[in-house]
Amino acid sequence: MNAFMRHEAEALSLSTPYLLFLGDIDQPSYAKTAFGLVDWAPDLCVGEWSTAEGAVSAGLARMDPAEARSRGARSLVIGVANPGGVIPDTWVAALVEALDAGLDIVSGLHRPLSSIPELEEAARRGGRRLVDIRVPPKNIPVGTGRKRSGKRVLTVGTDCALGKKYTAIALHRALLARGVDADFRATGQTGIMIAGKGIPMDAVISDFEAGAAEVLSPDAAADHWDVIEGQGSLFNPSFAAVSLGLLHGSQPDVFVVCHDPTRKEIIGVEGFPVPSVEEVIDLTMRLGSLTNPKIRCGGVSLNTSSFDEGEAARIMKAESDRLHGLPVADPMRGGRLFERLVDSCLA
Amino acid sequence: MNAFMRHEAEALSLSTPYLLFLGDIDQPSYAKTAFGLVDWAPDLCVGEWSTAEGAVSAGLARMDPAEARSRGARSLVIGVANPGGVIPDTWVAALVEALDAGLDIVSGLHRPLSSIPELEEAARRGGRRLVDIRVPPKNIPVGTGRKRSGKRVLTVGTDCALGKKYTAIALHRALLARGVDADFRATGQTGIMIAGKGIPMDAVISDFEAGAAEVLSPDAAADHWDVIEGQGSLFNPSFAAVSLGLLHGSQPDVFVVCHDPTRKEIIGVEGFPVPSVEEVIDLTMRLGSLTNPKIRCGGVSLNTSSFDEGEAARIMKAESDRLHGLPVADPMRGGRLFERLVDSCLA
Repeated sequence: MNAFMRHEAEALSLSTPYLLFLGDIDQPSYAKTAFGLVDWAPDLCVGEWSTAEGAVSAGLARMDPAEARSRGARSLVIGVANPGGVIPDTWVAALVEALDAGLDIVSGLHRPLSSIPELEEAARRGGRRLVDIRVPPKNIPVGTGRKRSGKRVLTVGTDCALGKKYTAIALHRALLARGVDADFRATGQTGIMIAGKGIPMDAVISDFEAGAAEVLSPDAAADHWDVIEGQGSLFNPSFAAVSLGLLHGSQPDVFVVCHDPTRKEIIGVEGFPVPSVEEVIDLTMRLGSLTNPKIRCGGVSLNTSSFDEGEAARIMKAESDRLHGLPVADPMRGGRLFERLVDSCLA
Repeated sequence: MNAFMRHEAEALSLSTPYLLFLGDIDQPSYAKTAFGLVDWAPDLCVGEWSTAEGAVSAGLARMDPAEARSRGARSLVIGVANPGGVIPDTWVAALVEALDAGLDIVSGLHRPLSSIPELEEAARRGGRRLVDIRVPPKNIPVGTGRKRSGKRVLTVGTDCALGKKYTAIALHRALLARGVDADFRATGQTGIMIAGKGIPMDAVISDFEAGAAEVLSPDAAADHWDVIEGQGSLFNPSFAAVSLGLLHGSQPDVFVVCHDPTRKEIIGVEGFPVPSVEEVIDLTMRLGSLTNPKIRCGGVSLNTSSFDEGEAARIMKAESDRLHGLPVADPMRGGRLFERLVDSCLA
């Protein structure tokens, strides 16, 4: 790596493993980040810590920052959101203790960590980092459209919040299990914490959206796969710009359409029906072919969490039949259908 | 307007008319902003001012800030870019003089005006504004996709930098000349200076791109037209995200495709051919119909500046014939063809 390259933009990179911070939160619904990390990245979670006796638990061993550091932890991750959106004084003292114990602080909260003088001072004192994962890396270049080496698969959706992140993580694990050299490329806050790296694509300035996606999945070996977490939907009137910049910059060879058959309307807006899987395939092919003319659909990831196993199997088969045999699977259920979807992506 | 509404995001609004500041620049190529303002908004330009005898002139009466203020000027616009990207000390003293004379400062330079302590101090002292038109308004909401009242026409392009701004300005003027109630909605720096208001769409965070376009062209009377300046191109691998967010949020009833027949490759990238006008019409119809199912193409604005009058006329006729009679005109040439394009937009 030469001096010039060191000045180029890189994805955020977190120091792992983590001590999960639960603050004084006593309602589990505010601790989704912590629970997601324990579910999806247990190897990254050394322990948990809270500032109050009645706080929620993520089921890990409770330990203070000094002990976590001695057990290998490198960052304290704020795994909860405060209902008022503020960081109370009791948290500040605890976070300073963590910095002084040698941990970075990682936060997905709205208020930047560096806006709190005590944290800024403690971080400087100990040479630790305050990492706001809502903040994209600096110096992101404008996209070039240049074809990069290596293979890429992107998860896209008929809507937001129906399984693009989980599908990408499950695909990544399936590739690793088969001995395929692969990286999970995270594009949202929780994904970045799980991966320990990534770029928050929704927080990037529009002019640099495609460029950020290019930085996220750089040139790689010819048989390497990047599994890229999708964002939004091309059919979402609020967020399609994010989805298109990510599609163009990712230049995927393969995409997987994520869909929830119980979702009828686009969430968060009024009067926009969820598009059909066929419409998403067709539009993704058309728009994605600008930067990768060989783009193809690997299959469908169906969120069947509302159904029992028998119903789910019937729905997946019916959907596959309707789509002329395209692989349809629920990664959360795994099994033969999911292996078939993985086969199709690698084909 | 109630208290709640006053807290909502609004487009940038500049205080007009302007004193154009030319600094010490002696090369006309660095004074494009000033020349563009004189060409397109002469009524907004009270005079010009420079800090050196050999500076370029925009052809206006030379006057200092105090005189400009007495003649009605309300802002000093920095009409030049410094080759090094810095604001030299001689400029700072001049800008402080303008603030003390009662003028706001308007800048499109990369470095924020507020990063210069002397300017910050002088602005506070006199209650004047430092307006960086690269900086979008705060509190832009997420797009809703809600259909708004009034009519909208958006200029789109086969590429960047081939006439979307000029086409929108010319359409706006033609509508006013016909007595149609209309606003020009600027989306780029020069357009914002010409209009005295607008939102720099390329500087908006991706998640809020469509929302910014919604703020830009709010509800209006049923027979009111917003003429919205397009940005980028859906076929540009660097900037399509900007174009799609602007398209979705603008929910145009009509779009005009801007094209330069001499342009063969997308500028700024390698290996991307300029799409055909038909491809742009087709994709704009398809993507735009998400937020306005009645979207239609009003015609084509052809940049014929490389051709003489006879050649231009032949090219425009051939293009219109090829497009089954769709109106094709060059707004810079005006005339009967352009009036036909305006008719088509209003139809």
